[in-house]
Amino acid sequence: MIGIGLVGYGYWGPNLARVFSSNKNAKLLAVCEQKSDRAALARLHHPHAFITPDFERLLENPEIHAILIATPVSSHFPLAKAALLAGKDVLVEKPLTSKVADSEELVRLAKEQGRILAVDHTFVYTGAIQKMKQLIDSNDLGELTYFDSVRINLGLFQHDVNVVWDLAAHDLAILFYLIQARPISVQAMGACHAGNDIENIAYIHLTFANNFIAHFHLNWLAPVKLRRTLIGGTKKMIVYDDMEPSEKIKIYDKGIIVKDGDTNSLYKTLVDYRTGDMVAPKLAHKEALVSEAEHFIDCVMNRTPSVTDGTAGLRVVEVLEATQQSIKTGQKISLKR
Amino acid sequence: MIGIGLVGYGYWGPNLARVFSSNKNAKLLAVCEQKSDRAALARLHHPHAFITPDFERLLENPEIHAILIATPVSSHFPLAKAALLAGKDVLVEKPLTSKVADSEELVRLAKEQGRILAVDHTFVYTGAIQKMKQLIDSNDLGELTYFDSVRINLGLFQHDVNVVWDLAAHDLAILFYLIQARPISVQAMGACHAGNDIENIAYIHLTFANNFIAHFHLNWLAPVKLRRTLIGGTKKMIVYDDMEPSEKIKIYDKGIIVKDGDTNSLYKTLVDYRTGDMVAPKLAHKEALVSEAEHFIDCVMNRTPSVTDGTAGLRVVEVLEATQQSIKTGQKISLKR
Amino acid sequence: MIGIGLVGYGYWGPNLARVFSSNKNAKLLAVCEQKSDRAALARLHHPHAFITPDFERLLENPEIHAILIATPVSSHFPLAKAALLAGKDVLVEKPLTSKVADSEELVRLAKEQGRILAVDHTFVYTGAIQKMKQLIDSNDLGELTYFDSVRINLGLFQHDVNVVWDLAAHDLAILFYLIQARPISVQAMGACHAGNDIENIAYIHLTFANNFIAHFHLNWLAPVKLRRTLIGGTKKMIVYDDMEPSEKIKIYDKGIIVKDGDTNSLYKTLVDYRTGDMVAPKLAHKEALVSEAEHFIDCVMNRTPSVTDGTAGLRVVEVLEATQQSIKTGQKISLKR
Amino acid sequence: MIGIGLVGYGYWGPNLARVFSSNKNAKLLAVCEQKSDRAALARLHHPHAFITPDFERLLENPEIHAILIATPVSSHFPLAKAALLAGKDVLVEKPLTSKVADSEELVRLAKEQGRILAVDHTFVYTGAIQKMKQLIDSNDLGELTYFDSVRINLGLFQHDVNVVWDLAAHDLAILFYLIQARPISVQAMGACHAGNDIENIAYIHLTFANNFIAHFHLNWLAPVKLRRTLIGGTKKMIVYDDMEPSEKIKIYDKGIIVKDGDTNSLYKTLVDYRTGDMVAPKLAHKEALVSEAEHFIDCVMNRTPSVTDGTAGLRVVEVLEATQQSIKTGQKISLKR
Repeated sequence: MIGIGLVGYGYWGPNLARVFSSNKNAKLLAVCEQKSDRAALARLHHPHAFITPDFERLLENPEIHAILIATPVSSHFPLAKAALLAGKDVLVEKPLTSKVADSEELVRLAKEQGRILAVDHTFVYTGAIQKMKQLIDSNDLGELTYFDSVRINLGLFQHDVNVVWDLAAHDLAILFYLIQARPISVQAMGACHAGNDIENIAYIHLTFANNFIAHFHLNWLAPVKLRRTLIGGTKKMIVYDDMEPSEKIKIYDKGIIVKDGDTNSLYKTLVDYRTGDMVAPKLAHKEALVSEAEHFIDCVMNRTPSVTDGTAGLRVVEVLEATQQSIKTGQKISLKR
Repeated sequence: MIGIGLVGYGYWGPNLARVFSSNKNAKLLAVCEQKSDRAALARLHHPHAFITPDFERLLENPEIHAILIATPVSSHFPLAKAALLAGKDVLVEKPLTSKVADSEELVRLAKEQGRILAVDHTFVYTGAIQKMKQLIDSNDLGELTYFDSVRINLGLFQHDVNVVWDLAAHDLAILFYLIQARPISVQAMGACHAGNDIENIAYIHLTFANNFIAHFHLNWLAPVKLRRTLIGGTKKMIVYDDMEPSEKIKIYDKGIIVKDGDTNSLYKTLVDYRTGDMVAPKLAHKEALVSEAEHFIDCVMNRTPSVTDGTAGLRVVEVLEATQQSIKTGQKISLKR
Repeated sequence: MIGIGLVGYGYWGPNLARVFSSNKNAKLLAVCEQKSDRAALARLHHPHAFITPDFERLLENPEIHAILIATPVSSHFPLAKAALLAGKDVLVEKPLTSKVADSEELVRLAKEQGRILAVDHTFVYTGAIQKMKQLIDSNDLGELTYFDSVRINLGLFQHDVNVVWDLAAHDLAILFYLIQARPISVQAMGACHAGNDIENIAYIHLTFANNFIAHFHLNWLAPVKLRRTLIGGTKKMIVYDDMEPSEKIKIYDKGIIVKDGDTNSLYKTLVDYRTGDMVAPKLAHKEALVSEAEHFIDCVMNRTPSVTDGTAGLRVVEVLEATQQSIKTGQKISLKR
Repeated sequence: MIGIGLVGYGYWGPNLARVFSSNKNAKLLAVCEQKSDRAALARLHHPHAFITPDFERLLENPEIHAILIATPVSSHFPLAKAALLAGKDVLVEKPLTSKVADSEELVRLAKEQGRILAVDHTFVYTGAIQKMKQLIDSNDLGELTYFDSVRINLGLFQHDVNVVWDLAAHDLAILFYLIQARPISVQAMGACHAGNDIENIAYIHLTFANNFIAHFHLNWLAPVKLRRTLIGGTKKMIVYDDMEPSEKIKIYDKGIIVKDGDTNSLYKTLVDYRTGDMVAPKLAHKEALVSEAEHFIDCVMNRTPSVTDGTAGLRVVEVLEATQQSIKTGQKISLKR
C-alpha cells in the first residue's frame, strides 16, 4: 500500500485525490492546502485524510511515499525539490516547472536520489493517444512526415500565463510521447489582442531530423472549439479529433508513392496516389486519470520510470521557453544539444 | 461589344472562353493555342472564333480589345507585356507573374498605357467572399484581429511548383481583397517529403500594423480535404468553410470585452466573454467566374480599375516570393516599403 | 420554505434531491427508500434529511408540502394517489402512469383536492425547448406543418419496458408542450429483434387537425446516436439537434410560396421556393432540472398549474398506450374525444 | 456492336445518350424526340444519330437492337410494350410504369418474347450500393433486422406526382436489390401542405418475413438535405450517407448478444452490448450510369437478365401503388401473394 500526500486542493487537486483514493494499492494520507475554504472541502471529501497547511508535515511523515503536486506552476520547483530531497517519489502537475534550468535540476536530482519523478501529462493516458502510440510503434503509419495540431476556442484569458503556457503543454506532451525525439529548432509567432502583452493566439513550428515537422495553433479568441491533430505518415495518416464523442481517431490508408523518374531527368520525381479504407478503431474508455494513477503507483512499487517522467516534462518546458523567446525576438531558436 | 482574345486553351482557358462567350457585352473573337489537340477542341467548342497558334495575330487585330492570358505562369509576363504595349486590356491567370519585379513592371506599364490590368483571383467573386467583404467594410466584425486559413488535401504534386505557389495564391488574394493592407513581414516554414526539394507542406505567417496577423496552412499530404478560414474581429468572428454545401459562412456574435483593471495594478486587464447568436447568411449563388467576366467587361467599357487589379496581383506575388525566401533561409522577411 | 419529501433514491432520485436541496425556497426533509444500500447513499449525500423505508412517514409529516416520486412507473399511481389524498402537491417522474385510466384519475383527484400535480418532463425546461416554444408562440414559424423526431442509439434493452416507453415519452412531452393540441389518431409500427416480444425499434405517427402530423423514430439498435427533430412551418423551419454541443437549434428562413394557378386549371397549384439566412440562436445554459425545480416550487407557492401538469402527463400516456395497441393490432387508433 | 435507339431527350435522356455513345460496344443510332428544341439539342450533341419525332422509325430499324425509354412515366408502358413486340431489348426509366398491372404485363411479355427488360435504377450501380450488396451477400452483417431510409430536402413540387413517386423509387430500388425479398405489407402515411392533394411528406413502412422491417421518410419540405440509410444486422450495422463526399458508407462492428436467461424465468432475455471498430471502405468511383450502360450492353450481348430487370421494376411499382392506397385509406395493405 503506497501512502500518498497531495499538495494543492484547488482546481485539479480534487481530481488527483479522487483517483488516488480509489486506487486499491494507494492510500491518500494527507492533503496540504493553505486556503481554509479549500481545506474544508478536502476534509469533507476525504474525512480520513490529514488536512494541513504545512507542507513539512507531509515530508516528515514516513508513511507518505509519494507526493502529488497540484499547485500553481511557480511553486512546482521548490515543492518537488524538497519532496525529492526528503526521499519521496513525486508526481507534478504540468508543466513541470516554469524554467528549463529548474526542470533539469529536478531530473538530475531524481536520478541522484533514485526517486520516481513523473509529470501529469494526462492526455498521454487516454485511449486515443495509447492507440496512436501503438500504431506508430508498430510502424503502421510508416515514416512520420508531420504533426499538425489545432487547439482553439473562446478561452479563459489568464492574468499571468499566455495561450502557449495554457494550451500548448497538452499537445507537446502528446507529440513527445508519440515520437520520442527532440526538436532541432523552434519558431513561434503570436499576437496580443486584449490590451496587454499576454499572447492570446500563437503558432509554434518545430523542426526535427529527417524532415519531420510539427506545427501548433493555439488560440483563445476562436469562435469555435477545435481540438484536432493530423499526423502524416508515408503509409497511413491519422486525424485525431478530441471533440468527436466516440470516433476520436480516424486512420486513413492514404498516401503517395514516390517513383524514380526518367534517368535523363535529374529533377523529375513521379508521384502516385494511393487511397484506401478509413478505420476508426475502438478505443479504451477508461478515464485517463485513473490509468495515470495506476501507472504511477506501479512505477512507485516496481521502481520503474514513468512514461511521462521528468525528461518528458523537461522536453515540454524546453519548447515552451524557446517559444516565448522566439515570439519576443522573431527569431528561430536552435535548441542546444 | 468588347472583342476578346484568349491565349491558352489548356486547363483553365476553356472556362474563360465559356463565360466570356456567354457575356452579352463580349465576343470571343480568337483563341491562341499552340498544341494542335487543344486547338481542335477550341475549334469544336467555339466554331465562330479564329483559332491560331500565333499570338501576334491577336495583338494585330484591332477588333480585339482585351486579351485573356491562361498559359503557364512563366509566360504571363512576356504575353501580358506585349498585350499592354499593343494597347490591349489584359486579364491574367493567377499568379500574375513568377517574380515581383515583373509584376511591378506590368503594373507600371498598364498605368502608363492607360490600360486595364486585371488578375483572375476567382474566389474574390464568390458570394461568400463578397458577403465577407461587405461585413468587414460595414464594420460588423469590429477591428480585425487575425485571419487563419487552412487549405489542405491529398493533392496533385506538381513538377516545378510547390504547394505554396499552387494553393496559397487563393487565400492571399482573398485576404488582400478583404483587408486592403500590406503586410510588414513574412515568416514561412515548409518541408519536402517526396524525395525532391519541392515543398508539399508549408505555413506562412504575415504580420501587419495594429497587431493583425494572418496565418496559412497549405498541405498536399493531408488525409482530409479542408478549406477553412477563421476571421477574428473585436465584435464578431467568421468561420468560412468552403467545403460546406450551403452554409459556407457562419458569423458568430462572440468576443471578449476588455475592461480597465484595478488602478493599483499596472498589469491586470480584466476580460469578459460575450456570446450570442450564430448566423449563416444567404449567399448569392451566381458562378464566380461569370461575375468576374461581367466585372472585367464593365471595367473595360467604363475604363475603371478592377477590384482584382495588377496591384492586387502584385501583392500576392510579393508574399509568394518572400515565402520562398523565408522557407529557404529560415529568416523572417521584412517587406520593403 | 417548501418542505420536500422524495420517494425513490435509485437512478433519478439523487438528481431531484440535489436540485431541490439547492433551491433557496425548498428544504429536502425526508427521503423514502427501501433498499438499504440506496438509503445509505441518501444518508451520506443528505445528512440533514430523514431517511426512511416507510412512505407513510412522509405523508403524515405536516412540514412536507410536496412529494417527489422517482420510483418505477408501476408504483407512480398508488404513490401519487396517496400523496394527493394526504393533501400533498406532487411531482411524478415521467411517464405519469402506465395506464391512461390511472392518469385520468390522478388529474381528476388533483383538481378535486386543489393540489398541484406535475410531471417531470425535464426536456421542456431546457433552453432549447424554451426557445422553440417562444418562436412558435410568436408565430415566427407560421402555421406548423410537421414534427419529425429521431431518437436512436445502441441502447440499454430493458426487461419489461419497450423502446417506446423508454424513449418516446421525451419527444411526446416536447411535442405537446410546443403545440398544445391533442392528436386525432395514432399509427405505430415496431419490431422485436432480441428473441423476446419487447420492441427495440418503433415508429409512431400522429395526425392532428389542419394537416399537421408528427412522426417519431425510436431505436435501441442503431449504430449511431441521433437526437434530431425537424419542425416544419409555413414561414420558417427548425432543426433541433440535441447532440450538438452548442448550436442545438437552427432556424431556417426557408419555405414555399403557394400561388393560385391558372383559373382554367382546377388542379394546378404553383409553388415557389424561398430560402434565406439560417440562425442558431443563443440558448440559456441553465440546467433544465434546476429550472424545473424552481418552476415547481413557484407553482406550489403561488398555487398555479405547472406547464408540465397532470394533463400534459396524461396526453403522453394516452399516446404511449395507443401506440402499444396499434403495434399489436396493426390498426390505426383513433383517440376518443 | 449493339445499335441503340433512345426515346425522350428531356431531362434524363441526354445522360443516357452520353453514356451509351461512349460505350465501346454500343452505337447510338437514333433519338426520338417530339419537341423541336430538344430535338435540335440532340442533333447538336449527337450529329451522327438520326433524330426523329416518329417512334415507329426506331422500331422498324433492324440495326437498332435496344430501345432506351426516357419519357414521362405515363408513356413507359405503351412505348416499352411496342418495343418488346417489335423484338427490341428495352431499358426503361424508373419507375417502370405507373400501374402494377402494366409492369406485370411487360415482365410477362419480355419473358414470352425472350427480350431483355431492364429498369434504370441508377443508384444500384453506384460503388456504395455495390459495396453494401457484397457485405450483405457475404453475411458480414449477419441477419438483417431493419432498413431505415431518410430522403428529404426542400424539393421541387411537381404538378402531378407526389413525393413518394418522386423520391421513394430510389430507396425501394436500393432495398430490393440489397435484400431480394418481397414485403408482406405496406403501411403509409402522408400529408399535403401546398393547398392541393399531392403529398409533400410521406412515410412508408414495410414488413417482411423474419421480423425484418423497412421504413422510409420522404419529404419535399425539409430545411436540410439528408440522404441517409441505416441498415441493422445482427453482426454489424451500416450507415449509408450519400451526402458525404467520400466516406459514404460506414460499417459499425456493433450489435447485441442475446443470451438465454434464467431457466426459471420464461420471459427474461439477457442482452449484452458489443462495440468495435468502424470502417469506411474505399468505394469504386466509376460513374453509376456508365456502369449501368456497360451492364445493360453485356446483358444484351450475352442474353442474360439485368440485375435491375423487369421484376425489380415491378416490385418497386407494387410498393408505390400500395403506398398510394394506404395513404388514402389509412389502412395497412397486404401484398397479394
